Amino acid sequence: MAHIEFLEGLPGIRGPLAFSPETTKPLRDLAQVLMSGPHTLTLAEREMIAAYVSSENDCYYCHSCHGSTAAQHLGGAADDYRLIDQIKQDYEASSISEKMKALLAIAGKVQKGGKYVTSADVDRARQKGATDKEIHDTVLIAAVFCMFNRYVDGLDTWQPHDPEMYIEIGKLTATHGYANRDITKPLQTRATK
Amino acid sequence: MAHIEFLEGLPGIRGPLAFSPETTKPLRDLAQVLMSGPHTLTLAEREMIAAYVSSENDCYYCHSCHGSTAAQHLGGAADDYRLIDQIKQDYEASSISEKMKALLAIAGKVQKGGKYVTSADVDRARQKGATDKEIHDTVLIAAVFCMFNRYVDGLDTWQPHDPEMYIEIGKLTATHGYANRDITKPLQTRATK
Repeated sequence: MAHIEFLEGLPGIRGPLAFSPETTKPLRDLAQVLMSGPHTLTLAEREMIAAYVSSENDCYYCHSCHGSTAAQHLGGAADDYRLIDQIKQDYEASSISEKMKALLAIAGKVQKGGKYVTSADVDRARQKGATDKEIHDTVLIAAVFCMFNRYVDGLDTWQPHDPEMYIEIGKLTATHGYANRDITKPLQTRATK
Repeated sequence: MAHIEFLEGLPGIRGPLAFSPETTKPLRDLAQVLMSGPHTLTLAEREMIAAYVSSENDCYYCHSCHGSTAAQHLGGAADDYRLIDQIKQDYEASSISEKMKALLAIAGKVQKGGKYVTSADVDRARQKGATDKEIHDTVLIAAVFCMFNRYVDGLDTWQPHDPEMYIEIGKLTATHGYANRDITKPLQTRATK
């Protein structure tokens, strides 16, 4: 049972989104422009930041959805899913670019609190080729997922552990983005079948 | 010096907001509907939640702006500002309603992380008269300010310590809300005069 009553069959953030349509509109617009709009960070790189921060916040629904979306943007093979798991566990040891490692270091500081980000963190990202816009968007993506993770876990939402469901969500998000789907309809999950 | 280059003379979140207009639109729409839309929590009560969470996150600009906005909604007298200071320091000992104390307890848990919110926290709020909608909005306001605080501090924005400036911001926000002002123009502050 979640802390408040949601429509049945809506996992994770979908319960709160359906509960409060007036705040859902700007939340989805924000996710769409930040995660799917034109940008020098690839769609996969932005989703990696979201998945990593959500993993650090221990938000199962969010890190599973955004990890799967990142993997789908990379092609959706088993190796892509393995890379995302490695990023969550130890991104410095993974095969991602040095620029992405530096940006994930900034994202990890933002997850702890904004004041943890140091000039040395930002200098490292710049030395690896990150632009001001990429540094800005990394901080904002990390901050935004600190919000979404708290929204999802603070209301104790239903978060089924069903790998197939997260693969399906990753495919849908990678294909359609954030603003143009009906996310208030129950998903077919193993838990509901 | 902030971590990235902002327009001069823009304190706190105004620098990042002017830097990234495409994400600023949904961020301001979100603040407007959540903090100024029709609701059973008063405008002052919603700003108290924002000020308290921002204070717990040690974000000087945000807790000063939203504390001042809360005080202005209460009437703007010195006693109103003193009440907000007391809420930041020890809301349980303040003169606010038992319902607001229970909602601030939930907000404080969300500030630490979504999973800290317990059924006992939610039961307490219900017993003091809080509705599901009020519990939802408390969690979302707290989560949203965990985002804004990280956006402001994660980029190391300029945050002048000028009480007059925050009184002015509180008056402007209490009067005009969040979506309809030009916040990219420099404010007259003691630091810039």
